[in-house]
Amino acid sequence: MRPVSAEELQRLEQTLHAEIPLTRAMEIRVLGFDTRGLTLGAALAPNLNHKKTAFGGSLNSLATLACWGLIQLLVRDAGRPITVVIQESSVRYLAPVMQDMQAHCPLPPDSDVEKFLHVLERKGRARLELQSMIDADGEVAIEFYGRFVAYDKTRFRRVEPV
Amino acid sequence: MRPVSAEELQRLEQTLHAEIPLTRAMEIRVLGFDTRGLTLGAALAPNLNHKKTAFGGSLNSLATLACWGLIQLLVRDAGRPITVVIQESSVRYLAPVMQDMQAHCPLPPDSDVEKFLHVLERKGRARLELQSMIDADGEVAIEFYGRFVAYDKTRFRRVEPV
Repeated sequence: MRPVSAEELQRLEQTLHAEIPLTRAMEIRVLGFDTRGLTLGAALAPNLNHKKTAFGGSLNSLATLACWGLIQLLVRDAGRPITVVIQESSVRYLAPVMQDMQAHCPLPPDSDVEKFLHVLERKGRARLELQSMIDADGEVAIEFYGRFVAYDKTRFRRVEPV
Repeated sequence: MRPVSAEELQRLEQTLHAEIPLTRAMEIRVLGFDTRGLTLGAALAPNLNHKKTAFGGSLNSLATLACWGLIQLLVRDAGRPITVVIQESSVRYLAPVMQDMQAHCPLPPDSDVEKFLHVLERKGRARLELQSMIDADGEVAIEFYGRFVAYDKTRFRRVEPV
């Protein structure tokens, strides 16, 4: 994929805040993208739980959106309006997160990305499985796995579970 | 378990709003409890996504909290301060949710509840696996499974993943 500009990252953050209003309440930011993947951040304060650590629902949402955002970047040159939805996910809460959160979604192997974009162009929809993680104190605290579907809005009104 | 009073349900909602501030932004309410389980609700508007349906992160949070809330009710007579945390979960997004959400967590079988409370009393901590679901148009739209741990705060500073 071609490099991602600062403007494109800013646009992704604006899209999140405009289209998923809860991301504003969660204070989610797009922190950066490089060859290792996409990183989103969120402040701890609006996402606290009863233990004064990060709320599991917020951790899951941030990890989900890191993957969703990465797919947005992958499909941005598709030349048609692509919608990305989640089909299923699982998450392991390995340790409490007691500071501002960063969720990182690594870029999948080039061959997976190429296959995904090829199927999307040919069939108008394609699946992608991604992982993301949130660290705390240098250790993985949250392991997230999600299966997503991207589809061409001009060809599918909505994607049925498959 | 003994019946749950309206005051106890109101207290659960107050606890959610006080200790997990995001539940206020999500407009989560405790709707009711009966022999079939606990039901939480949330307005659609603050939980919208880019498709003008319910955001997956909000659906997962609501489903998680229905289970978490049910355990709060199960342990309310433990006679000591019990903390409930989530260890892992998985969720299937089967259909979009286009209206205010209701997450229902069914009471597990009596024998599971008795075993859970017995282990909690004897060892100071105990696991419980729960399911919850969110319907849309009379069909199950969201299937959630979660594994939770309850522990006696006076005996454990924090529960390590096990």
